[in-house]
Amino acid sequence: MSNSSDFYFYLNNKILKGNDLNISPFDRGFLFGDGVYETIRWYKGKLFRLEDHIERLKKSLSSSRINFSDFDEIENAISKLVKVNNFSADHLLVYLQISRGNYFPRQHIFPPDIKPTFFLSVTPYIRKESELKNGVKIILEEDVRWMRCDIKSTMLLANVLAKQKAFENHAMEAVLIRNGNLTEGTHTSFCAVKNGKLFTPPLSNLILDGVTRKVVLEICKVNNIRAIETEIRGDELKSFDEMMVLGTISEITPVVQVNDWKVRDGKPGQITMKLQNFLSEMIFS
Amino acid sequence: MSNSSDFYFYLNNKILKGNDLNISPFDRGFLFGDGVYETIRWYKGKLFRLEDHIERLKKSLSSSRINFSDFDEIENAISKLVKVNNFSADHLLVYLQISRGNYFPRQHIFPPDIKPTFFLSVTPYIRKESELKNGVKIILEEDVRWMRCDIKSTMLLANVLAKQKAFENHAMEAVLIRNGNLTEGTHTSFCAVKNGKLFTPPLSNLILDGVTRKVVLEICKVNNIRAIETEIRGDELKSFDEMMVLGTISEITPVVQVNDWKVRDGKPGQITMKLQNFLSEMIFS
Repeated sequence: MSNSSDFYFYLNNKILKGNDLNISPFDRGFLFGDGVYETIRWYKGKLFRLEDHIERLKKSLSSSRINFSDFDEIENAISKLVKVNNFSADHLLVYLQISRGNYFPRQHIFPPDIKPTFFLSVTPYIRKESELKNGVKIILEEDVRWMRCDIKSTMLLANVLAKQKAFENHAMEAVLIRNGNLTEGTHTSFCAVKNGKLFTPPLSNLILDGVTRKVVLEICKVNNIRAIETEIRGDELKSFDEMMVLGTISEITPVVQVNDWKVRDGKPGQITMKLQNFLSEMIFS
Repeated sequence: MSNSSDFYFYLNNKILKGNDLNISPFDRGFLFGDGVYETIRWYKGKLFRLEDHIERLKKSLSSSRINFSDFDEIENAISKLVKVNNFSADHLLVYLQISRGNYFPRQHIFPPDIKPTFFLSVTPYIRKESELKNGVKIILEEDVRWMRCDIKSTMLLANVLAKQKAFENHAMEAVLIRNGNLTEGTHTSFCAVKNGKLFTPPLSNLILDGVTRKVVLEICKVNNIRAIETEIRGDELKSFDEMMVLGTISEITPVVQVNDWKVRDGKPGQITMKLQNFLSEMIFS
């Protein structure tokens, strides 16, 4: 396990070593889950789809009514961290979080003149090549999250508990079901393939507008793969030929097992691997 | 406004001044809303219903799968803070929060050998005598929270946004409605009175097992006020004679206005004030 003291981070306009990172327990990110975040990939010197992440961040902030406007600072701060950390890896993971800020005494109501807390971490990432190539197992779990999953909020206990359950069941991800319909994974979007067509749940307040999901829909369009945004029922899952989970960290990860049953022959599907290749070309071009 | 540097707090077995309180942004309370909390009142030298708060805390921790067992330390730590802060006020507010702890790198899965973060704050509280005497306005808001509101989790953004909306509408509280039924306020339980009988939504995964709610049901039993735990529909609200919100901070606060309409004559109800008197006797006896 790596140690945070090995790296420099960015906290409220300061570059600090991991053991010098301090926030107050009166930060509303700690007290209220009153914050939003983004995870961004850095591939061989380039941030992937930064604009999409910033656009989504703006929406999350606006829905949460957090006043942060220093968006130009984000790319700048990431570059500074890459430089000061002397990173030369092909794969870096950017994590940024903005909370409403720090105020005493604790109160639900927005405090006057509060300044958001901006935290940024850039760390090396070891790509999960085996999962990408061989596929993974998922479990299905009830979606007990709030009704604004379109906000990339730090209120993630439900996701944590479901992901932990997946881990304990030797699965890579838990895909959630609300009212009988699949929504998304704990940190991924979900797609399935039937007769050469891609299916994925439609955008709503119940799922995140995933950047990789968006990219996959673009790839489908350009490459004449029919993509349909529609509800997928949990009880019709066995009728699909292929499945995959998508995400900034997971990219396009084939799903080869659901709970105790295999998806078709238990190997990554053709369309899935085709999409994965297109994405790789896009990322590394 | 008071300043946190005026007080001593308790963080992971240390007593510290407000400006020396430091947690890492890698604390899962900050990253994931991965923590639970309690708010307890101190009336004239006595903690009110500490056992009930501890019992509920144990349930929240168990449901969140956070391993904390140092419950004996809680009362002890509160006493230490009262002493070191030289508090002599009649009203103190105890806030305690336990997160799963601090771990790098960020990961959803429970980290190995993680030690919970235990934060405790005891501060003077100015009782809202006017609200208790004259009653307050509430607004009704859609309940968009998660499906485990029985856990006293720090994932409170939905509560924060609803409470802020209440504040902007000159109301003291937002009471939430899910599927047409009232659940509870953003930090209170809800009761209504009709024909001398008290009604309150039944315990379920959708509401917190409120300590003041429990105390009020006990008071009703002892004093032969019929109390019925049953769903209250938003559209039948005008048929009630009295309403109140209950909580550790709010005690029994009469509700005299809902949105733009007054509850009966716009004055605190008889049963409400009777219950408030019984509670005061209990608190200050």
